[in-house]
Amino acid sequence: MTQPPTRSHGRLSQSASLKPRELMTDRPRLAKAWCAKVITLFPETFPGVLDASLTGKALQKGIWALETIDLRTFGTGKHRQVDDTPAGGGAGLVLKPDVMGRALDIASQGTPQDRALWPIVYLSPRGKPFTQADAERFSKAPGMTLVCGRFEGLDQRVIDHYGMEEVCVGDAVLTGGEIAAQLVLDATTRLIPGVLGNAESTQEESFSDGLLEHPQYTKPAEWRGHAIPSVLLSGDHGKVAKWRKEQSEALTQERRPDLWAKHVEGKDTD
Amino acid sequence: MTQPPTRSHGRLSQSASLKPRELMTDRPRLAKAWCAKVITLFPETFPGVLDASLTGKALQKGIWALETIDLRTFGTGKHRQVDDTPAGGGAGLVLKPDVMGRALDIASQGTPQDRALWPIVYLSPRGKPFTQADAERFSKAPGMTLVCGRFEGLDQRVIDHYGMEEVCVGDAVLTGGEIAAQLVLDATTRLIPGVLGNAESTQEESFSDGLLEHPQYTKPAEWRGHAIPSVLLSGDHGKVAKWRKEQSEALTQERRPDLWAKHVEGKDTD
Repeated sequence: MTQPPTRSHGRLSQSASLKPRELMTDRPRLAKAWCAKVITLFPETFPGVLDASLTGKALQKGIWALETIDLRTFGTGKHRQVDDTPAGGGAGLVLKPDVMGRALDIASQGTPQDRALWPIVYLSPRGKPFTQADAERFSKAPGMTLVCGRFEGLDQRVIDHYGMEEVCVGDAVLTGGEIAAQLVLDATTRLIPGVLGNAESTQEESFSDGLLEHPQYTKPAEWRGHAIPSVLLSGDHGKVAKWRKEQSEALTQERRPDLWAKHVEGKDTD
Repeated sequence: MTQPPTRSHGRLSQSASLKPRELMTDRPRLAKAWCAKVITLFPETFPGVLDASLTGKALQKGIWALETIDLRTFGTGKHRQVDDTPAGGGAGLVLKPDVMGRALDIASQGTPQDRALWPIVYLSPRGKPFTQADAERFSKAPGMTLVCGRFEGLDQRVIDHYGMEEVCVGDAVLTGGEIAAQLVLDATTRLIPGVLGNAESTQEESFSDGLLEHPQYTKPAEWRGHAIPSVLLSGDHGKVAKWRKEQSEALTQERRPDLWAKHVEGKDTD
């Protein structure tokens, strides 16, 4: 392995060390806390939204930990180059395998080799769509590494060599993987025991039963001429449950024919 | 309209004014710049990742503008309550229509009434999946308002009254809509003229032709015993193009049967 330079010249590099930068080192970190390592060219964008709300409180308490690894630190030459032109031609730039390989070697120190125990996830528009089942799987591992893509993507040899899984969040092109990584981390960390309060964790949630949630209403009973549907104020629990189920089913059929097809299929095999 | 209190008691409220807070007011704002207004309980999480990279440079230059509206400011009573129990019973809390209505009235000042000209998007797991076509549509409007959900969702009457569209990002449950809003804004603002450089904007991108992108490789030719596929180094442009197309098609079939079905369908009707 080429020894990376020990001092940073990169425009975006702020770290003088090759070791992952633990965010908020003044915070406690519980023994065996679930840990996310994020390889990115924009480490300053983390924890971002993850520092707010219940995920943020849990991060501050040390229930989970976040380390960022600045990819720029591992770049080559005076300008800490991280990318190069695509083999075979074409527009754009591809993240270099040697650079990402060095970053991944640092990230992998002290983590399990078995990808089931420590997934390495590459956020990429080419990936499989991220689902609640992925979030559950990730939350049960001791931690995971996330690689934020930029430019035209990552050299395929790195993806293969490290057994990375490519995960995609929504069918739109992003400037980079950072927001997608935060989305994956938000969905995953809220499933770690102790992150959500009891009240929140027992809520009926969209996707968990394969249907979209029914419409919700709250006080006041009348707002700008619009009333709450009378069935919800009837006090008849059976009628309320029936109405909500019908609404859920109608909404799922209309907006998510894909989920509806799975739901009907699941019923058939019950 | 009930006059909201003029002083904040809310735990999260930091704004003394009901006017939207323009982020980074020391920054220029070009005339008729594309504008995003975000209603959220966590205004401090913006611009977040959007302040980095090319979207961030464009924000700093005033090519697009971002205003946050702190929902807590519009809450009722001493504790600036924004939510209440669901009508008809059940766990969780629902965002109140009167509170969100007041926030939306402020956000709507000076914006077109026509939703085609000024979409109001509610980030919700019940929404239609966000696509590249949505990002293109949003980027062509003069701006948009985004509403970040929390808890068990938003009173349905507000969604109907304002003609909001519900948009979902990925099939996983999030703690709130803030990351989803940033994702929508990232995908949308990068399509605004002047945000991306010419080189970037002309790249072949996943989704734009309905297929996932082929694998990419760059120098070095050999890395840790793995070579770049020889066809890519052959210099034969026809062969390279053929190989890439085959790879794209195989990958799309494997990972995204939904996109593949649309692609095949599109070909039939040509």
